[in-house]
Amino acid sequence: MAKEFSVSPYEVKGVVDYDRLIKQFGVEKITADMTKRIEKHAKSLHPMLRRKIFFAHRDMGWILDEFEKGNKFFLYTGRAPSGPMHIGHALPMLFTKWIQESFDVELWLQIPDEEKFLFKQDLSFEDAQEFLEDNLLDIIALGFDTKKTHILIDTKNSGIMYPEACKVAKKLTYSMVRSSFGFNEQTNVGSLFYTSMQAVPAFLPSVLSGKEIPCLIPHAIDQDPHFRLTRDILPKLGHYKPASIQCSFLPPLTGSDGKMSSSNEGTAIYLTDSPETVKNKINKYAFSGGRDTLEEHRKHGGNPDIDVSFQYLRYIFEPDDKKLAQIEKNYRAGKLLSGELKAIAIDKINSFLKEHKKNREKVKKDISKYIYK
Amino acid sequence: MAKEFSVSPYEVKGVVDYDRLIKQFGVEKITADMTKRIEKHAKSLHPMLRRKIFFAHRDMGWILDEFEKGNKFFLYTGRAPSGPMHIGHALPMLFTKWIQESFDVELWLQIPDEEKFLFKQDLSFEDAQEFLEDNLLDIIALGFDTKKTHILIDTKNSGIMYPEACKVAKKLTYSMVRSSFGFNEQTNVGSLFYTSMQAVPAFLPSVLSGKEIPCLIPHAIDQDPHFRLTRDILPKLGHYKPASIQCSFLPPLTGSDGKMSSSNEGTAIYLTDSPETVKNKINKYAFSGGRDTLEEHRKHGGNPDIDVSFQYLRYIFEPDDKKLAQIEKNYRAGKLLSGELKAIAIDKINSFLKEHKKNREKVKKDISKYIYK
Repeated sequence: MAKEFSVSPYEVKGVVDYDRLIKQFGVEKITADMTKRIEKHAKSLHPMLRRKIFFAHRDMGWILDEFEKGNKFFLYTGRAPSGPMHIGHALPMLFTKWIQESFDVELWLQIPDEEKFLFKQDLSFEDAQEFLEDNLLDIIALGFDTKKTHILIDTKNSGIMYPEACKVAKKLTYSMVRSSFGFNEQTNVGSLFYTSMQAVPAFLPSVLSGKEIPCLIPHAIDQDPHFRLTRDILPKLGHYKPASIQCSFLPPLTGSDGKMSSSNEGTAIYLTDSPETVKNKINKYAFSGGRDTLEEHRKHGGNPDIDVSFQYLRYIFEPDDKKLAQIEKNYRAGKLLSGELKAIAIDKINSFLKEHKKNREKVKKDISKYIYK
Repeated sequence: MAKEFSVSPYEVKGVVDYDRLIKQFGVEKITADMTKRIEKHAKSLHPMLRRKIFFAHRDMGWILDEFEKGNKFFLYTGRAPSGPMHIGHALPMLFTKWIQESFDVELWLQIPDEEKFLFKQDLSFEDAQEFLEDNLLDIIALGFDTKKTHILIDTKNSGIMYPEACKVAKKLTYSMVRSSFGFNEQTNVGSLFYTSMQAVPAFLPSVLSGKEIPCLIPHAIDQDPHFRLTRDILPKLGHYKPASIQCSFLPPLTGSDGKMSSSNEGTAIYLTDSPETVKNKINKYAFSGGRDTLEEHRKHGGNPDIDVSFQYLRYIFEPDDKKLAQIEKNYRAGKLLSGELKAIAIDKINSFLKEHKKNREKVKKDISKYIYK
C-alpha cells in the first residue's frame, strides 16, 4: 500500500509522492518538450527546471503560445508573513526572478499579511505586521527589478483589492471552500473569504490596464487549491484563467517528511540566520543519508536522495550541474563523508546568506518604491 | 395561535408583532423613563420617540450615563444601495439627524455598496455603484452637518476598513453567521464575511482617535442580528459594545405585511418620485382603513391603525401631534373619507419631496466633503 500524505495550503503531511499528487490535483507534468520551449525563449535554463524542482504546471503551453504571438504575460507570486522567512520561501522567489529577467515581464507580488493572522489562533495582528516588515526586506533583497515589480500588501492595498475580491467571493460558496481547504463550521469567516483576496492579483493588472493580460503564477504546489478555484471563477468575470508553474517542497532539516516551517525552528534555516547558527543547525539537525559507521560509509556509500544537505545544494545552493554531479558521485561512492557534505552545504548556504544580509541592509531605503500606490 | 412573521436583515415576512420581536431578539422596550431622560438632554422629543416608532434599544441607559459624565457618544448608521431610496429609508436617517443635532455628536455613516451586490444574484457591481451615487445624494440632501458627518463607502474606504474587519472576522465562525442570518452551504463567502465589515464603523472612530468612544446605532430592527454579533465580538477586541436604538418598519403601500422594498416599485414611494407618481401610487396602491361604501364609512368610521396613508403621516410626514390627532379623530368618526385622507398624505409627502429634490441639487457639489479620507 502506498504511503499516506496530504498537501493543502494549510498543511503538508507525510512524504509527498509528486507523481500521485500530479494526478490528485489534476496538474500537468513539465515535459522535456516544454522545458525546451522555455529554454528557447529564456536563452538559458534555470537549474530548478533542469533538476525538475519546478515539475508541474497548468496552461504553461498557452502562456508560451501567447508569448510567441507577442502577447506578454505578467508574473504573480506571494508570501504570507507568519514568521521569519526561510530558505524554502526563497525557492519560488528566486525562480520567479529568473523568469522575470529572462522574459522581461512585470511581476505582481502579493503579501497577504492578514492570511496567517486569520488562520493561526495564536498569531496577533501586530505580530503579523512585524513579520510583514521583516519579510518585505527579505523579498526585496532577492533583487527584483524595481521598475517591473509591484508589491500588493493586503492590509495596505485593500482599497483596490477588496472590491475586486468581492466579485470573486460572489461566485464562491461555503461548500466550495470547505471541500478545497478542509474547512468546517467552526472555521472563521475571514478564512472562508480569504481565497478571494488571493485571486485578485491574477486579474488586477488586467483590470488596471483595461485589457486582458495572461498571468503566470510560479508557486509551491500546496497553493494549487487556491488557484484551482481562481481558475474556475475568473472566466465568469471575463478574465483569463491564470496559468501556473509549480515546485516541490524544500525538505525540512529533519528529512523528507512535510515541508520546512517558519514557525518550527528545528526544521528551518532562516534567511537571517548567522553563519554559526547555520553551522549548528546543519550539523545538529540536517538529516543525513550517510551510513552509521565510517567503515560502512566508505564501503557502501551514502544516499544523496534522502540527504538533506545534498538536497539543499540541489534545490538552491549549487547551481553548477557538474559540481553537483561530482558531489553526488563521491557521496554515493563513500568517498565523501556525511560531515564533509555538511561542511560543503554550510559553506554554500552561508555564502548565499552573507550576500543576502548585505542586500537586506542596502534595500531598506527602497521598500516604498516597490509597494503599489 | 399567534400569526407567523420573521425578521432578518435579508427578509421581513408577515405582520410583525413588535412585542414578540422584542423578546425574540432580546432587546429592551423604550420606557417612559428612558424617553424622559432623552428629552432632558435633547431639550425636545422627536415625534418618532413620542409615537413609539423608535420603540426598542440596547444599552441606551449606558449611553446616557456616559453622556451625563461628559463622555459623548458617536452615532453610526448606514444604507446599503440596492435601488433608489424610498421614504422608509429616510426614517432612521431623519431620526439620526435629530440625535446628531440635539446631542451635538459626530456621525459615521456606512454605505456598504458591496452588501447587496453580494446578496442579490441579479445585482451587478456596476448597477450597485450607480445606486451608490444616487443614494449618496438622497442621504446628504437630508441635511447632515458637513463637519460632523463622515461617510464610509465600503469599496472606497476598504483600505482602512478591511484590516479592521479581519480582526472581527477572526472571532466569527461559519456556524455563528449561519444561525444568525439563515445562511447555508450554498451561501457565497462574501456574504459570510460581510457582517465583519458592518461591524467596523462601530469601533473605527475609537481606533482612529486612540481612545474608546461609546457608539449609538439608530437602525430599523431587522439589522439587529448584525449588531448582536458585533456586540459579542467587540469586547474581545478591547472595544465597547455598541448601543442601539431601533425603529419599526414603515409599512409598504400594500399594507402592514413585510416592509417597503426598493426593488418592488408597487410597495414603495421613492425619494425621487414626481408629485404625479406619488399621487398615483397613493391613490392606486395605498392600503386603506376605510369602509367599503360611503354610507358605511360615514356610519362606522375608518381604521387609521391599518391605513397606510395615515401611517405615513404618523411615521414621518405630520410631525404636529395635535394635527395628527385631529386627523385620526375625524377618520375614526367617519367625517374624513379615505380619499380625503389620501389627499392629505399626498400633499404632505409631496411637500417633503419637493424640498428634498431641491436639496439633492444643492448638495451635488458637496458629496466629496462627506466621504472619509
